[in-house]
Amino acid sequence: MAYLNDNYLKLKAGYLFPEIARRVKAFCEANPEAARRLIRCGIGDVTEPLPAAVIAAMHKGVDEMAVSQTFKGYGPEQGYEWLRRAIAENDFRSRGCEVADDEVFVSDGTKCDTGNMLDILGAKNKIAISDPVYPVYVDTNVMAGHTGEANEAGAYAKLVYLPCKPSNGFIPAPPKKHVDLIYLCSPNNPTGAVATREQLEAWVKYALEHKAIILFDAAYEAYIQDPALPHSIFEIPGARECAIEFRSFSKNGGFTGTRCAYTVIPKSLNAQTKTGEFKPLHPLWHRRMTTKFNGVSYVIQRAAEALYSPEGKTQVRGLVDHYLGNARVLREGAKKAGLKVFGGVNAPYIWVRTPQGVTSWQAFDKILGEANVVITPGSGFGSKGEGYFRISAFNSRANAEEVARRLQELKW
Amino acid sequence: MAYLNDNYLKLKAGYLFPEIARRVKAFCEANPEAARRLIRCGIGDVTEPLPAAVIAAMHKGVDEMAVSQTFKGYGPEQGYEWLRRAIAENDFRSRGCEVADDEVFVSDGTKCDTGNMLDILGAKNKIAISDPVYPVYVDTNVMAGHTGEANEAGAYAKLVYLPCKPSNGFIPAPPKKHVDLIYLCSPNNPTGAVATREQLEAWVKYALEHKAIILFDAAYEAYIQDPALPHSIFEIPGARECAIEFRSFSKNGGFTGTRCAYTVIPKSLNAQTKTGEFKPLHPLWHRRMTTKFNGVSYVIQRAAEALYSPEGKTQVRGLVDHYLGNARVLREGAKKAGLKVFGGVNAPYIWVRTPQGVTSWQAFDKILGEANVVITPGSGFGSKGEGYFRISAFNSRANAEEVARRLQELKW
Repeated sequence: MAYLNDNYLKLKAGYLFPEIARRVKAFCEANPEAARRLIRCGIGDVTEPLPAAVIAAMHKGVDEMAVSQTFKGYGPEQGYEWLRRAIAENDFRSRGCEVADDEVFVSDGTKCDTGNMLDILGAKNKIAISDPVYPVYVDTNVMAGHTGEANEAGAYAKLVYLPCKPSNGFIPAPPKKHVDLIYLCSPNNPTGAVATREQLEAWVKYALEHKAIILFDAAYEAYIQDPALPHSIFEIPGARECAIEFRSFSKNGGFTGTRCAYTVIPKSLNAQTKTGEFKPLHPLWHRRMTTKFNGVSYVIQRAAEALYSPEGKTQVRGLVDHYLGNARVLREGAKKAGLKVFGGVNAPYIWVRTPQGVTSWQAFDKILGEANVVITPGSGFGSKGEGYFRISAFNSRANAEEVARRLQELKW
Repeated sequence: MAYLNDNYLKLKAGYLFPEIARRVKAFCEANPEAARRLIRCGIGDVTEPLPAAVIAAMHKGVDEMAVSQTFKGYGPEQGYEWLRRAIAENDFRSRGCEVADDEVFVSDGTKCDTGNMLDILGAKNKIAISDPVYPVYVDTNVMAGHTGEANEAGAYAKLVYLPCKPSNGFIPAPPKKHVDLIYLCSPNNPTGAVATREQLEAWVKYALEHKAIILFDAAYEAYIQDPALPHSIFEIPGARECAIEFRSFSKNGGFTGTRCAYTVIPKSLNAQTKTGEFKPLHPLWHRRMTTKFNGVSYVIQRAAEALYSPEGKTQVRGLVDHYLGNARVLREGAKKAGLKVFGGVNAPYIWVRTPQGVTSWQAFDKILGEANVVITPGSGFGSKGEGYFRISAFNSRANAEEVARRLQELKW
């Protein structure tokens, strides 16, 4: 009598984005006319083609796979040395952050990495998660049995939720009580808020005092424009003793359908065994990756490497500027529509307050039904996201302008 | 005080293949002359370039990613419908096995899938694993906390080991006692043995009686030559109620460095909750994949699809024939060297008995040091692999012939 993992049965409804896809599909089938003018600003999925440098590198990589002399079989599970070096050098060392090549682990996605990271962490950790936030942090903890049941608002017992609200600029301060693991996402998905140096310093101080670990998701790092804002948790002294950082090529290089990301685990980061000893996590993640993963496709790693070439860097800058331009258009449009707007300056997401008395899903249905625009209901990111919705800036400029126009026509 | 997962500390030494790589590196650095004539028959890694149909499909896919109109962002996490359909149709339905398109989940590797499958299964299952076998089954169960400590021979408490030996043709019969999960690998890695229809029928009968689940790893299915041998567990009536099958494109299409695989979970497969209800596993795996995975790269899925085109099929046949030709050469060479040889007929692995009194690692060191050939020590696959070594047929024909020659020159 084989047993299943009962923790999965605690999960509420579907994962947010499949649920949105389901509603949109039903709407489009029922309204073929409206479906033709549908604009998607829901899921944070890029729309612009891959940079030319990436395309060239991929063609070259494919050609190498066609000839015995240059064919590549299994690569190192942690990623090729040339890619780990390019990452450590360009994203960290050149910005003054100490990160060694072999502290970088190349993977196929930040979603995978943040979920899989729980494999090497113990079951007894007290876990703090911002609310609202990217739902994968909560859902993977539910699956791993780190929570109790959910209440009606969708909040799970045993998790420590850190409310993000206008009064704290949507970046929570460390809690009064003790926690062991803290998920931080900056620039934030969904609110578009970015943690300041002072805010991250407070978190690192807390983590060091509590011997806690910060899981720092910097997937949207490329969107930071303000030179005063930190791009990496490792800019903060002490972070090498208390933090893991996740990065992705999805939103800078446009790799959502190409799949490459990475995680940095400093060798100086320790966690506790059941018997109270402190041991480094780096060898555990190394073991996990070599045992449960086979590395990213060679051609895809060459694609990622191309993002660090001079042309690649210029082309990435062009992509990011394009989406940030959309964010400005959408932000202004929503403001002119009389809505209260946050984010969208150092991030590709605009976080919008729904008009008085309108829930997130009501706003979703209204905007879909009347403006034929897909947004993401804020409550899908946590109970404190209720009363908000997220507009994604990943689109063509023409679509962003059209969405801005339609938002202003909408009568609430 | 963040806790780590103590189960990782139970793991013995390194994962087998990194350990081999370490020894080979040390040998080559100390013996640069011998290093130049080194031939690798250790890790089961393909050597021949990707089929022409795959190369063409990848170039086309890359070009699509270069243009807005055909650019692909996030795909379905479970794989594109066109690939799932090609798999279900070609690998199952055309062979008389009932498998629906949406029972196929496309992934980046069988190693990942067999490890990740434990996510959706309960912690209390009694687990049976062949010995010797692909070490990932054991190691991922250790990591998940399903075992006790290892003894000196490397066998972990709580696991039920099913000895594979010459007397059972290296395919174990179902045990007398009750188990909940059974790992079967056919064609087998490392022994090259293939389960007969009768053997699989006995396992399906056992699994149905015990409401157990068979985790059937058929990554080497393409190497089966004997028309009487089953290619899929789903050829056995009743398997849709008790089995999950893993397949890979690594060893047929040569995708070890390209990364694509799939898993079949029938919707009729149930497992038990803590309260004794039976629920289908299919929605749990679907939830796992959508929450902890982001799908395989679009270009790579197009590459996999090309394996099912008429040209792709012919080219795969050519690759498999090439490696099976090597297997024949190596098998004959080892026999002429006076060694007792198994496998290598319907599988790309030759399983060789070490001469009397020689351990697996002693044989590894001797063959490396004197013949400058890398093989895999049998004890790395489990305690019952002691006294054997595995020769991989993944190589050029010239290398296979040279290895066959050198084995005959070796004095034991």
